[in-house]
Amino acid sequence: MTVLTVTLNLALDVTYGVRRLRPGSMHRVAQPAQRAGGKGVNVARVLHALGEPVIVTGLSGGSTGRDIDADLEAAGIAADLVEIAAETRRTLTVMDGEAGEATLFNEPGPPVSEAEWNAFLARYETLAGEATVVVLSGSLPRGLPEDAYATLIRATTTPVILDADGRALRLGAAAGPRIVKPNAAELAAATGESDPRTGALKLGAGAVVVSRGSGGMTVYGESDWSAVPPRDVRGNATGAGDAAVAALARGLAAGSPWPDRLADAVALSAAAVAAPLAGDFDAGLYATLRAQVRAVPLP
Amino acid sequence: MTVLTVTLNLALDVTYGVRRLRPGSMHRVAQPAQRAGGKGVNVARVLHALGEPVIVTGLSGGSTGRDIDADLEAAGIAADLVEIAAETRRTLTVMDGEAGEATLFNEPGPPVSEAEWNAFLARYETLAGEATVVVLSGSLPRGLPEDAYATLIRATTTPVILDADGRALRLGAAAGPRIVKPNAAELAAATGESDPRTGALKLGAGAVVVSRGSGGMTVYGESDWSAVPPRDVRGNATGAGDAAVAALARGLAAGSPWPDRLADAVALSAAAVAAPLAGDFDAGLYATLRAQVRAVPLP
Repeated sequence: MTVLTVTLNLALDVTYGVRRLRPGSMHRVAQPAQRAGGKGVNVARVLHALGEPVIVTGLSGGSTGRDIDADLEAAGIAADLVEIAAETRRTLTVMDGEAGEATLFNEPGPPVSEAEWNAFLARYETLAGEATVVVLSGSLPRGLPEDAYATLIRATTTPVILDADGRALRLGAAAGPRIVKPNAAELAAATGESDPRTGALKLGAGAVVVSRGSGGMTVYGESDWSAVPPRDVRGNATGAGDAAVAALARGLAAGSPWPDRLADAVALSAAAVAAPLAGDFDAGLYATLRAQVRAVPLP
Repeated sequence: MTVLTVTLNLALDVTYGVRRLRPGSMHRVAQPAQRAGGKGVNVARVLHALGEPVIVTGLSGGSTGRDIDADLEAAGIAADLVEIAAETRRTLTVMDGEAGEATLFNEPGPPVSEAEWNAFLARYETLAGEATVVVLSGSLPRGLPEDAYATLIRATTTPVILDADGRALRLGAAAGPRIVKPNAAELAAATGESDPRTGALKLGAGAVVVSRGSGGMTVYGESDWSAVPPRDVRGNATGAGDAAVAALARGLAAGSPWPDRLADAVALSAAAVAAPLAGDFDAGLYATLRAQVRAVPLP
């Protein structure tokens, strides 16, 4: 049983720690922390920490791409990346120590040529054919067609989980993924429907898991259930959705019933909020919450 | 006639453009601009733009070091860098388009081993021996002795200009550079003297050029002159001191008299303030100011 996570817009996530962020002034920063990032990499980190076999694929280029390769290898996460000519992007988080506040800067993704996309497709078909579940996550770099996720979904018979937004979500959902996981705002934006059940039906995937932060998650489609975390967890919400996707991928691969999958996604997502870095989760809090969260059937 | 500029703490200068810097929120940035930086590189850019032969040396490592090599080559600036194992640092400038305000983040320099420092010293002796003037600029990376500049000054008979601060300035000045160029605050901090003439004499270099931003510059030692820009120039003061050093290096190499050197340094420095990037200057403004600035002898 192996999960393949696909991150077309990989990033090197860099963190600068400053005592106080003062616009207009000069800051000496400590040695910056940097690690491989992008939503699919976060999903893979969570699965790897849970002891689940996982492989990371995506498009990677330049010296930043080599830094990502090296970081995944150091983390013990299997990777099979397809090289592109342009430089992989960075994201920068400036952590203000006094305010406990994060300021984020996201560079644009690199341009991808048609030949590079075709090389990726060929590699992907092999990797997806060998996987139990495929996870497609995040934004598309420049140069890729808007229906790139639809192409990846149609190219395999392995069940797919899609975590995207906007047109990439709408076009991808129409290609028949087993599960999509928008948050409530993404679902409303992609479908134009304010009612999540109506929006989920309109999207047309096998199952639609709608997340609402501390308001929990609801699944529509194959089965209709809802689960809510027992208490509000404070921390860094970046990566919470990726932890939920990791739980859904594990549940799908194991064939566990929907109430278990959904409760697991809610607990793991809340435990990820408690960990400072996206892709990490608080293992103790996860165990506690997992024992408390119960999914209830929708009326 | 060739100037050798030494930058022990090279940097890749990255600029993010944002519409408005909002602490605590997420910013999508346009394709980042990046180029080789560090004070000695800025000096070399100015000399290169003036048509003066110049060679850049320093310590460079990792993928950031390769980016610096590539950028200097693209700019047509001759470089002979010594490779180190650790990664060269970056500096980041976040430019707020609405406020027209720059927020700076400086990473710490890489650690340098004793073997790497010795390898640099051997290369430096050859390069300095072939140069007409040597310029030593900026901070020292970790692992280098505090008297690193003193060692470099004693290792050559070629006249040296030193632009440093703190102990590196004090120990370096005692080793007999031809010119040092602290600003007024750096001179006071290094000598403990509030009067610049007393501080300059205490420092003990051949000539001490003290800069005071829009208040102009004064030289003490070999000859005592002062020059002031005819008007206040608004813009980015980063790199203004490096432009002054470039003028002093050109004047020293050509053997031009002190009043000319000082007037040239004041004009070029003000023209650098008018250019957005450190290492650039406004050529039209330089020509205008150069015709207006006159050095006057100190009483």
